[in-house]
Amino acid sequence: MNLAAQPIGVFDSGIGGLTVVRQLRRLLPHEDLVYLGDTARVPYGTKSPAAVVRFACEDTQFLLRHNVKAVVVACNTASAWALSTLTQRFDVPVFGVILPGARAALDTTRVGRIGIIATNATIRSMAYNKAILARNDTVQLYARACPLLVPLVEEGWMDHPVTRAALREYLRPLLRRRIDTLVLGCTHYPLLKTAISKIVGPRVRLVDSAETCAEFVRERLAHLRLLNTRRRRAGTIQPFVTDEVERFSTVAAQFLGEAVETVIKVDLAAV
Amino acid sequence: MNLAAQPIGVFDSGIGGLTVVRQLRRLLPHEDLVYLGDTARVPYGTKSPAAVVRFACEDTQFLLRHNVKAVVVACNTASAWALSTLTQRFDVPVFGVILPGARAALDTTRVGRIGIIATNATIRSMAYNKAILARNDTVQLYARACPLLVPLVEEGWMDHPVTRAALREYLRPLLRRRIDTLVLGCTHYPLLKTAISKIVGPRVRLVDSAETCAEFVRERLAHLRLLNTRRRRAGTIQPFVTDEVERFSTVAAQFLGEAVETVIKVDLAAV
Repeated sequence: MNLAAQPIGVFDSGIGGLTVVRQLRRLLPHEDLVYLGDTARVPYGTKSPAAVVRFACEDTQFLLRHNVKAVVVACNTASAWALSTLTQRFDVPVFGVILPGARAALDTTRVGRIGIIATNATIRSMAYNKAILARNDTVQLYARACPLLVPLVEEGWMDHPVTRAALREYLRPLLRRRIDTLVLGCTHYPLLKTAISKIVGPRVRLVDSAETCAEFVRERLAHLRLLNTRRRRAGTIQPFVTDEVERFSTVAAQFLGEAVETVIKVDLAAV
Repeated sequence: MNLAAQPIGVFDSGIGGLTVVRQLRRLLPHEDLVYLGDTARVPYGTKSPAAVVRFACEDTQFLLRHNVKAVVVACNTASAWALSTLTQRFDVPVFGVILPGARAALDTTRVGRIGIIATNATIRSMAYNKAILARNDTVQLYARACPLLVPLVEEGWMDHPVTRAALREYLRPLLRRRIDTLVLGCTHYPLLKTAISKIVGPRVRLVDSAETCAEFVRERLAHLRLLNTRRRRAGTIQPFVTDEVERFSTVAAQFLGEAVETVIKVDLAAV
């Protein structure tokens, strides 16, 4: 069996992880992808660590049944709380979004003052702080939970006065600290890049955790000789969700930047 | 066994239902209450009808194990989608929030122009429209989904410029229709009453579905001779949640208007 020819599995609590899929498609166009959005239990960002770990294990088990060669945790909250459990419990390589984002933040900053925005659960986990400080403990970190940004994106208010007002409120304390780098620590946030750029101005550079995660996955799979280098045709995406298909399909294209294949609803308790 | 002495069960997807508990306490101070907040799966408002029905059945089963004499569905989304299934499947009286709110809206309006605000799922269900029009089909209804209001309340931004801006955006089309009555079709919204009143002005009267639900429960339990009329001491509240206790406890007091008893975490799959 040619392991490299098998698909890459990607999961998220819902739709946000499709921004990671979009970047994987850009960097690894020949790879087949299996995506699971756990839309019946979305969001993970407001749930407890124990619940997030349990959900992430069930998501991973589902992907493994589809013979994936690697699992990408395309969700900052699940990466923050569940990555170590997943790497210990399962035999395939498991990649999260935190470590690549942390590396990119350190590569980007010049003055050593880094802002981090994410969901409540990700901020509480201190996962970005730990990952950054483990590599360089001289930088200053300023973290802020922004629980309204996911609902604002899901409302479709990417460039709306309410979103701009919420962003100003959330980002003001970070700007006062004169950060020069801002980590977008949630896979929904790439859709707010334009609005965020306008508020933080050209002197603050944004680290997109979806983009840096995809780069990291390419690098690691290459190292593990797991890239599907032989194939010429474009890879496929098979999306699965745990709640209704309709709502997912309508917004998925916006996150993914292309039309989605037929979405299949699954019951994780039954598989 | 004295049925009337048994507790009333109340459930919601999370914390919002505590506004109903608060009103039940005010109207029925001698009743014991058992509350279940399904915080592991909150919110229901963005989930599919099938998922909401399944969750509501599991919540009701849990309450019945605590020997409740009646079940209050203190969640508009669950009332909208699951009430008929619950009343058919279970042997105790089951009360929702929609019918009382619909009745109150008709009692309140003078010009027959009623606005309804709620979550996506409640609006999509058309439950308020159906309940109101079944009683009076001459009124004009204007419904608007306001998916950001729950996250804004949970962020604690009850009287914040961002909340006011979001409310103005959501309410403008309804005000343009010259409504004189506005149904707050979500158990989180009573916490925004002050902010909403300022925007709609004194000529629009608010129907608080938590308040009208509690009045309805009192009326129906009296009719069924299920009120605990013999007791002199104050009733108790036993709160259960399906995710971590800590987060719930900190915000619960704000919804409830009093300190909460020890919250117990339960696993619905295991009971």
